[in-house]
Amino acid sequence: MKAKARAHTNIALIKYWGKRDEALFLPTNSSLSITLDKFYTDTSVRFDPKLQADQFFLNGQQASQQETTKISAFMDKIRLLAGEKHYAVITSENHVPTAAGFASSASGYAALAAAATKAVGLELDNRALSQVARQGSGSASRSIYGGFVEWQKGELEDGLDCYAVPLLDKDAWDLRVLAIEVSSVAKKVLSREGMKRTVETSPFYQGWLHAVELDLQTMKQAIATRDFTLLGKTLEANACKMHATTLGANPPFLYWNSATMQVMEAVQALRDQGLEAYFTIDAGPNVKVVCQPSQVDQITSQIQSLDVVQSIQHCRIGPGISYLDQE
Amino acid sequence: MKAKARAHTNIALIKYWGKRDEALFLPTNSSLSITLDKFYTDTSVRFDPKLQADQFFLNGQQASQQETTKISAFMDKIRLLAGEKHYAVITSENHVPTAAGFASSASGYAALAAAATKAVGLELDNRALSQVARQGSGSASRSIYGGFVEWQKGELEDGLDCYAVPLLDKDAWDLRVLAIEVSSVAKKVLSREGMKRTVETSPFYQGWLHAVELDLQTMKQAIATRDFTLLGKTLEANACKMHATTLGANPPFLYWNSATMQVMEAVQALRDQGLEAYFTIDAGPNVKVVCQPSQVDQITSQIQSLDVVQSIQHCRIGPGISYLDQE
Repeated sequence: MKAKARAHTNIALIKYWGKRDEALFLPTNSSLSITLDKFYTDTSVRFDPKLQADQFFLNGQQASQQETTKISAFMDKIRLLAGEKHYAVITSENHVPTAAGFASSASGYAALAAAATKAVGLELDNRALSQVARQGSGSASRSIYGGFVEWQKGELEDGLDCYAVPLLDKDAWDLRVLAIEVSSVAKKVLSREGMKRTVETSPFYQGWLHAVELDLQTMKQAIATRDFTLLGKTLEANACKMHATTLGANPPFLYWNSATMQVMEAVQALRDQGLEAYFTIDAGPNVKVVCQPSQVDQITSQIQSLDVVQSIQHCRIGPGISYLDQE
Repeated sequence: MKAKARAHTNIALIKYWGKRDEALFLPTNSSLSITLDKFYTDTSVRFDPKLQADQFFLNGQQASQQETTKISAFMDKIRLLAGEKHYAVITSENHVPTAAGFASSASGYAALAAAATKAVGLELDNRALSQVARQGSGSASRSIYGGFVEWQKGELEDGLDCYAVPLLDKDAWDLRVLAIEVSSVAKKVLSREGMKRTVETSPFYQGWLHAVELDLQTMKQAIATRDFTLLGKTLEANACKMHATTLGANPPFLYWNSATMQVMEAVQALRDQGLEAYFTIDAGPNVKVVCQPSQVDQITSQIQSLDVVQSIQHCRIGPGISYLDQE
């Protein structure tokens, strides 16, 4: 009745942006990501008949009531699936710099889904596991696999055809990601809220849905042919489109700030010098830059020289979930 | 056979963004502007039977062949209208800080249209004059009038129902505009080119066309009721939408830069303090901030403190075209 799992975070090259079903976490568009090696969450789950409620410990401390309630609601879904009645002790260690604005929900819910389903005795394949993880956080569905991963939106109302699939193994193509933290105040619009406001009010949302399908096809072609330039241009253009939709929302908003734009300008300047760096940005001001191994040092040193850059972390493409021994 | 006219530049509160006919300068959407008092062009035109070609003097110097060719092509349209065969000497003084990225094409073509049609003996009302000016530069159609002006897109293929109309006299509502020049390299995508790329490639262009009609109605309501908050929110949201469309173009581009965003952030911070400032941005990195007379000093001093701000010019709402005596 206990298990422990590790899952790594991922960055979307083709963005997940909008839900068609809020309760089931069904997206309006398919997305595509790479799993990163550096940032991960370790989570253990132990069911205990003596408990009166779930207990959640995060980074060595008992989590707040609000966090525990969220985790417990996710555990209820797993209990329902397994016909389990008992509560559990959940212990998570986040190796994701959340303070720097990197989302830990993807690795967090992927690790929890893996540990909890194993502890409760369910034997799920990765596809089914991605469907469970999805119901904690959409992007967690992609963190089940390593390498290049597609999360297929599916068509069915119950979400049975909505899951992640692996596209390319992590060792098949060596790309590098710089995770760049910029100086910034806390973000003002949460990603879930921003997504909802965009879907409901932006006149650009239909255009996004049309364009993202084309970008996804182009990206899959870039991956199949190992065409780095095509991959880079497509991921950057897709990020620009996602952020454009928020400028049309009512009221408009933007996850970028002026520090973000300084990094974007530096990336453009690098390309003008013949160094192939491409940026992507999620629901916050930090920037991820994708590049090739041979150019990573030159690219790093130029970006590091910007005043607004607080830290740069180097990532490689990482593995999918793994199960760990209990201490 | 000679005349001299003055026209002021204008800033669009609802943006002109996209042409339905390149040759006739027919727009895909109606737009709305205020004419500014500070920036203007004085132009004199003298037809002379002895000339073998048009001569164009700009700010005391003979203009380049390229500029002269453009002006001469515009003069051809007026000659055609009037059955005139002779060439002219055109002398323009631009009181628009073009080096700082403020477009002089609106005031330039409005002044030229007024002086040239008068010199050639045409008696046009302002509506007809706005149609002539439009064929030099779309936004010039709005600079025929002072105050608040709407440029109606029309439906006809020949453009006969496409002209500017005055909405509200300049003295009817005292608003202020700060024209803020930020540090920047020269813009990379010209407005004409950016507009075309957006219309042809952006998946957001249809959404823009839908949204701009709604914004125009809201803006006219704000003007009719003198609702400054509604005017401000609507003009800022409309500018955000226009710029969002360029992020969807292929390849994507953005007229903003990180300096622009620092001003946008400062405007947001002003509002958080209860000072009602709203920004708008055209096809370059500079920012115009619209505010009320009572708050202009406080707003100016806070924006002035930004390192990226090179200069701030204060404008009031200005008049339409006027005819000047010849020296």
